[in-house]
Amino acid sequence: MNSGESAGPLAGLRIVEVSSFVASPLCGLTLSQLGAQVIRIDPIGGASDYRRWPVTAGGESIYWTGLNRGKHSLSCDFRNPESQKLIQQLATAPGPGGGIFVTNAGGRDWMGHETLSALREDVITLEILGKRDGTAGVDYTVNAALGFPQVTGRGGGEVVNHVLPAWDIACGLHASTALLAAVRRRDQTGAGSQITLPLEDVALATAGALGYLTEVMVNGRQRQATGNAIYGTYGTDFVTADHARFMIVALTNRHFWDLVTLTETGAAVDALETALDTDFRVEGERYEYRDALTALFARWFRRHSAAEVSDALRKSSVLFEQYRSFTDVVESDALETNPLFSPLEQPRIGQYLAAGHPARFDSRHLSAAPAPVVGQHSAQVVAEILGLDDDEIAGLFERGVIG
Amino acid sequence: MNSGESAGPLAGLRIVEVSSFVASPLCGLTLSQLGAQVIRIDPIGGASDYRRWPVTAGGESIYWTGLNRGKHSLSCDFRNPESQKLIQQLATAPGPGGGIFVTNAGGRDWMGHETLSALREDVITLEILGKRDGTAGVDYTVNAALGFPQVTGRGGGEVVNHVLPAWDIACGLHASTALLAAVRRRDQTGAGSQITLPLEDVALATAGALGYLTEVMVNGRQRQATGNAIYGTYGTDFVTADHARFMIVALTNRHFWDLVTLTETGAAVDALETALDTDFRVEGERYEYRDALTALFARWFRRHSAAEVSDALRKSSVLFEQYRSFTDVVESDALETNPLFSPLEQPRIGQYLAAGHPARFDSRHLSAAPAPVVGQHSAQVVAEILGLDDDEIAGLFERGVIG
Repeated sequence: MNSGESAGPLAGLRIVEVSSFVASPLCGLTLSQLGAQVIRIDPIGGASDYRRWPVTAGGESIYWTGLNRGKHSLSCDFRNPESQKLIQQLATAPGPGGGIFVTNAGGRDWMGHETLSALREDVITLEILGKRDGTAGVDYTVNAALGFPQVTGRGGGEVVNHVLPAWDIACGLHASTALLAAVRRRDQTGAGSQITLPLEDVALATAGALGYLTEVMVNGRQRQATGNAIYGTYGTDFVTADHARFMIVALTNRHFWDLVTLTETGAAVDALETALDTDFRVEGERYEYRDALTALFARWFRRHSAAEVSDALRKSSVLFEQYRSFTDVVESDALETNPLFSPLEQPRIGQYLAAGHPARFDSRHLSAAPAPVVGQHSAQVVAEILGLDDDEIAGLFERGVIG
Repeated sequence: MNSGESAGPLAGLRIVEVSSFVASPLCGLTLSQLGAQVIRIDPIGGASDYRRWPVTAGGESIYWTGLNRGKHSLSCDFRNPESQKLIQQLATAPGPGGGIFVTNAGGRDWMGHETLSALREDVITLEILGKRDGTAGVDYTVNAALGFPQVTGRGGGEVVNHVLPAWDIACGLHASTALLAAVRRRDQTGAGSQITLPLEDVALATAGALGYLTEVMVNGRQRQATGNAIYGTYGTDFVTADHARFMIVALTNRHFWDLVTLTETGAAVDALETALDTDFRVEGERYEYRDALTALFARWFRRHSAAEVSDALRKSSVLFEQYRSFTDVVESDALETNPLFSPLEQPRIGQYLAAGHPARFDSRHLSAAPAPVVGQHSAQVVAEILGLDDDEIAGLFERGVIG
């Protein structure tokens, strides 16, 4: 249906999604960019996130169109038993690449795994939940209950929510990975899968794997807020003479001693090392004494302009970036000159530079077509997948089964 | 080699990784938990992140062991041409599930795609880069250059780094998804893949898809910092009479009017709506007037205890969580009662509750064995995969090829 679809590594796969918000649409977007055919099924008029901010001056959702690029849209009346049967048929249509259904709108028996697997034994279903008990939970509540806001920012009772919905993103990408794992099992053994993926468990598993929870269990204490300093190594931000801000990271000995040389603090750092009876070749010691080191380094940054700082850092091994705003990024040539981005003419939104899939496959970026209008492909989807003829399709519209 | 490996959906796949830090090891952990055999190849003594914080009192890395659970470890001398040849052989060993190589330590021709594809035409390689030009970049520098720190927290010149390495996590899970897409293509068509995945492009693509960059291009302005309020809808945090803090989210009309009823602010909210000539049934209007609404709701929270607030919210549709610290999470029964977690006896670290893969497959959680010591499986790996005999293996150790 899209130009370019057949070119991706997932050509031949078809995913049907009943999805909203971030995680589930991101799963579908990713699979679509990798070449799968992704069919959204929405209530007529769109689900509750169809107008979600950011919106254009005309009220069209930049958010919704961004996450649903390249997908096909069929809309129907979810309360109508005939529509429910149609959704079941689309989710379980035959073919080795079909029979894959993703939703974050579970709890409905008529589109549950049991119902669908009775229609197609090897169906793969993936249901994204909020909390593991099936109750609602969103990125911002899951994050509050887990502990990150308390160690973000400067601490001292301050609690800072993240802005990026990091758990939604991790959940959507865990979903795409898990689905493809299930597809491989089916390709190899013929077995379907019932997958459930709670947003809450994505956050807990990640916090566990990265040590945030484990250090409490093992060491009996958690890490503290460190402002913009990176935990466990040397890295923090500095302000220049002309009020620009830089993030500096020195992970290795080479990075660190390059930073010392560059900031002309060799004698002071040596003296500090001796006085404190420590060894700055050890990463953990650089972290322990980060505030004293930062105070020494900061003087050099305060006495040089952003241009001078950039030039000097570029000649060293130190990892760095100047802080930028979203506007700075767009106004730089960072998007124009990056082949990840290409101009997209998005109906209702306008033309903008849209990102493709972040990976290059065989030196090529995979991008995606514009997002549909809800219901744009209703007739086409039932014709192509269920083989309905024009009269049958007209009847579906007349009876309000599809819209 | 691990108990349980054969049970996962990716049984039969073998991934060889030369990996460090977060993204690349997380990709391997995820695939390992899904049943693939993952073999780490490390320099003798471990790579630069083998002692990374958090560490135990004895200096063992909680971080490294968390991300490398269930993997096998072979260590060798990367500068020795015989070791390099061994790595090439392991990455390209025959079999339909082999020939998959992941690294974030690229730039070395001897383990580049061209070299490996000459040894096995259908090899799949995935190289994680920092910046797209191949220069170094880490989560904290990529994030600074993208714009999120400027809209995190209260704004007004404040710049707040995230603590969770969200881009590393997204990159690792994009990597696992992309790899499995390439495996499916190879299974279907016999073709290998060369995949490159820059951390920088993961961040840009995500910020693009979620609208942060697009709204600047389309509307000519970016969003501002909103403290702990959620952009575009109604959600923020409140403090109770006993100084507990709750995150509250009202996405839908039902959520919102339940919150109004619960906080006994119906008359005030109606009066406000009339006076402002607005309509709080529109999500964007609730966002526009969030500060006034929050001021009204806050009084009720300030007059009730955490227990009373929880009870009342639980009876409503409003989404909420009480803020907790990592310590609060561990000290609650949240981990013990969650089948995602199971006790793991991790050599060098101790026993703790370790998370499995966050998805349940057919009602079952997939977990992982302990992390290895670097070099723990050196002999076993070359015996099983390359078919070397005891004398040959002894020779490899004697010549310092493996350690």
